[in-house]
Amino acid sequence: MTSEAITVLGLGNLGRAVAEAFLRGGQVTTVWNRSAAKAAGLDGAVVAGTPGEAAGAGELVVVAVLDNRAVREVLRGVDVRGRALVNLTSGTPDEARELAAWAAENGAEYLHGAVYAVPQTIGTDESAINYSGAGAVYERWRKVLELLGKATFVGDDAGRASGFDVAILAGMYGLIGGFLHAAALARAGGIGVGELTPMLLSWLVDLHPALVTFAGEIDGSDYAGGESSLAMNQSGLAMLIRAAEAQGVPFAGLDAVKALVDRQVAAGHGTESLARAVESLGSQRLAG
Amino acid sequence: MTSEAITVLGLGNLGRAVAEAFLRGGQVTTVWNRSAAKAAGLDGAVVAGTPGEAAGAGELVVVAVLDNRAVREVLRGVDVRGRALVNLTSGTPDEARELAAWAAENGAEYLHGAVYAVPQTIGTDESAINYSGAGAVYERWRKVLELLGKATFVGDDAGRASGFDVAILAGMYGLIGGFLHAAALARAGGIGVGELTPMLLSWLVDLHPALVTFAGEIDGSDYAGGESSLAMNQSGLAMLIRAAEAQGVPFAGLDAVKALVDRQVAAGHGTESLARAVESLGSQRLAG
Repeated sequence: MTSEAITVLGLGNLGRAVAEAFLRGGQVTTVWNRSAAKAAGLDGAVVAGTPGEAAGAGELVVVAVLDNRAVREVLRGVDVRGRALVNLTSGTPDEARELAAWAAENGAEYLHGAVYAVPQTIGTDESAINYSGAGAVYERWRKVLELLGKATFVGDDAGRASGFDVAILAGMYGLIGGFLHAAALARAGGIGVGELTPMLLSWLVDLHPALVTFAGEIDGSDYAGGESSLAMNQSGLAMLIRAAEAQGVPFAGLDAVKALVDRQVAAGHGTESLARAVESLGSQRLAG
Repeated sequence: MTSEAITVLGLGNLGRAVAEAFLRGGQVTTVWNRSAAKAAGLDGAVVAGTPGEAAGAGELVVVAVLDNRAVREVLRGVDVRGRALVNLTSGTPDEARELAAWAAENGAEYLHGAVYAVPQTIGTDESAINYSGAGAVYERWRKVLELLGKATFVGDDAGRASGFDVAILAGMYGLIGGFLHAAALARAGGIGVGELTPMLLSWLVDLHPALVTFAGEIDGSDYAGGESSLAMNQSGLAMLIRAAEAQGVPFAGLDAVKALVDRQVAAGHGTESLARAVESLGSQRLAG
């Protein structure tokens, strides 16, 4: 591929891995970091003294810093006219949209990337990044972006990649919380966590088709079917909470799941699908 | 296989599916249910008028009722001497142990079964049952028990099958809670749950090897390694909770996971593995 002029702002774990992947891919890479020492060992990189100097050197400007407040601080006063900004900093959908608006006001195009990788896997098949925002930037820079890992464009709304990200992370922390609780219960019951885990993971994978069914029920707001009723799960959860307490391992996360179910049963939907418990979670967007 | 004399006490969804599987397998099956009407259509079954009459007819007595309180009520005053009791009723490890003690006092052997199946799959490859308690009963009746689905013996402690069960269910409800939150967040962000779900499930499966690593760390109480530190996850969780609130979809289950992490970071373990969050869950067994 041809060599392009690229800038990387921020050399934390992610930013540094990104700069290394661009350099390995033969790109002319200019880097900047608040503490210049972080650029040590980045062979072939041009080290800029200010964000403005760095942004002036690259047509594509990739930002990877701690949070979107830091993105705004780094870009404050920088001339970004005509630049393609790609922000890989984790944050909320609204933060991505605000930065897209700021970029538009300042004559730049904006693409947001949500990274599914640990920094060590950036540039390998194990890394995946969802992008949203300026589709033209995605198309123009696709080959370069693919140096970082698998790339997917998920929509023109700059907040959409973060929207997926937030949802996926919420699902991930549910799994992790459930795993930690399961591990604590096993341990309290004299069962090795290493003995439990393969059995648990196999059962969870068996459950995935049910979650796909739930997804359809939720999208269609139709909870009439389903083999797993709210009432059945309510009684299973009550037994489970009792058992966890008897083992000395209560967990508020489990109570929170039961509360979602309870609310739907109390509203008279006990015979409907467990998927209806999603309706117990606020779906009203708050002002601002 | 030879035809054995078997009794099934309780003809709810599970008990009825169990009786049907035994009848399909050619066993001489005597059934009892509080409301005799539930036996309608069980072709070939002998319908008994009382639990005592039913238990007198079968060498193997399978119990599948609402909860272990109901098991005690059904068995009260029944002569179970010389019988092999197999209890498929969901409950806590302690309940299983108490029933095993009761059986021993009354001259019966006790095997507890934890069922991983919806009633519709009993008797198929999709059904799995973990048994614990009297190993001799398991060996003697294994072929008959395999009529219900895949059978695994997990130990002599009658509470052990329920111990696995409680841990696996806790893990399952973590996954379900996380999925429901993810679905609500997607919906609030204008993302179809059907579009999100395959991406989410694929990411969760990619996470399984990390959970296997966590299991080893927990069993060894060694949290020094790990790419995913408590401090990193604490800041990720803070961003996620902020994003969920901004989308109008807070969830106490996510706060509960963060609380586990916060406690370990506050205790000075921020650089250690996320797996250490398990130590925030009580592991002291409560009295009685």
